[in-house]
Amino acid sequence: MTKPVKSSGTLFLIPSSLGSEYTDVVFPAAFSGFINTLEVFIVENARTARRFLKSAGYSKSFDDATFHIMDKHTSDTEQAAFLDEILTGRSAGLLSEAGCPGIADPGQQIVRYAHSLGIPVKPLVGPNSILLALMASGMNGQQFCFHGYLPIRKHQQVQKIKEIEKDAKGGGATQIFMETPFRNLSLAEEVIRQCSSSTLFCIATDLTMETEEIITKPVGQWRKDGLPKLHKRPCIFLLWYPGKKG
Amino acid sequence: MTKPVKSSGTLFLIPSSLGSEYTDVVFPAAFSGFINTLEVFIVENARTARRFLKSAGYSKSFDDATFHIMDKHTSDTEQAAFLDEILTGRSAGLLSEAGCPGIADPGQQIVRYAHSLGIPVKPLVGPNSILLALMASGMNGQQFCFHGYLPIRKHQQVQKIKEIEKDAKGGGATQIFMETPFRNLSLAEEVIRQCSSSTLFCIATDLTMETEEIITKPVGQWRKDGLPKLHKRPCIFLLWYPGKKG
Repeated sequence: MTKPVKSSGTLFLIPSSLGSEYTDVVFPAAFSGFINTLEVFIVENARTARRFLKSAGYSKSFDDATFHIMDKHTSDTEQAAFLDEILTGRSAGLLSEAGCPGIADPGQQIVRYAHSLGIPVKPLVGPNSILLALMASGMNGQQFCFHGYLPIRKHQQVQKIKEIEKDAKGGGATQIFMETPFRNLSLAEEVIRQCSSSTLFCIATDLTMETEEIITKPVGQWRKDGLPKLHKRPCIFLLWYPGKKG
Repeated sequence: MTKPVKSSGTLFLIPSSLGSEYTDVVFPAAFSGFINTLEVFIVENARTARRFLKSAGYSKSFDDATFHIMDKHTSDTEQAAFLDEILTGRSAGLLSEAGCPGIADPGQQIVRYAHSLGIPVKPLVGPNSILLALMASGMNGQQFCFHGYLPIRKHQQVQKIKEIEKDAKGGGATQIFMETPFRNLSLAEEVIRQCSSSTLFCIATDLTMETEEIITKPVGQWRKDGLPKLHKRPCIFLLWYPGKKG
């Protein structure tokens, strides 16, 4: 159905590690086989991308590889130009600093360009903190919303927390959000300050790492027990209230 | 912070295959190591669970393993009782028929019981069609909502499609939904009938399989090109409109 691109390569979407050193725990066995077919990479940071690729079993020389950098300074034209090599038949890998490209991470626009050019897109299986957290939360996995970062300004943040708690009530969609690691504790404190005692709050920390901790408790229980150490640890937060059905 | 359970086992959440025969493409190398530590399983169907475990490298005898069945007929009390063995120290694995337990699949309530009993929950990395589709769609991965199944009745279905298209507009959250495979085509037809020409519609079919196909096009383009063969193929549908920013 898509306009066929003659002898086009494929855009591989490569999840990267969430911080675990054990690649065999988070990446499929065939992962290194896929990345070893590639010599063109679109990455956030060349140094960390090289380090990751090496740890994931990339065995070719980086001297023969091209690294295109996508960051805040990369214009739309430059992003589209990264795909030129794919149009000539060379496959490329897109990877972000942690987790899945395009999900709470850059890369989305490049994938969109690929579709508009009829370039096949191949997502590889790997770790994703949102999904692992939802799966392990015990909350509604039939309907859920991911909000990314909540507003930083207190007044707006409080308003947003109340709004999403309302959406979560009565067996509604699980509400998922995150924060930069150094503001985690402050956000979690605001959640347990604002929400009803019986609303369930899940804190999923250090996912896929040896220090991984995923705990779901009613807000009232969190108030009694206190919050775990969250400072500078990557977290996913989830809110839900089972309602009559759950 | 959780009430410590003395010598409790762990509840492992085991993703299963989406239909790919190649386990090395979708499961981490360490996957078989994890499942081989287990002799208690909570599953939807014992026969398919055994077949899957075998293909994923389970090398123990099933004669020594216990399979608890969770389905529509399993009462809350029975579900909670499945965890008794974990409380005595034996770890258990929870798996559904395809994909991740608890995400668009049963298992959620058992995970919730585990949290209420202070049993550690360990989600394993594996394939998930929602996530793979979102990653590969080129749509907003900073905010997204998964709706599960849309209403079947035409009038309500049309209303829901219009509602989620509105939420997707102007760079809003990506709207993700699905349908039972034999109604896929009818739903996709309704989407391209109801939505604006410029709204982006992604159809992700047969994810992780050799026949995988992920295509994002404006609704107007789908109308011109026609829909791919969708009948009885598992699909994930995504709607989004980039707006000014995207």
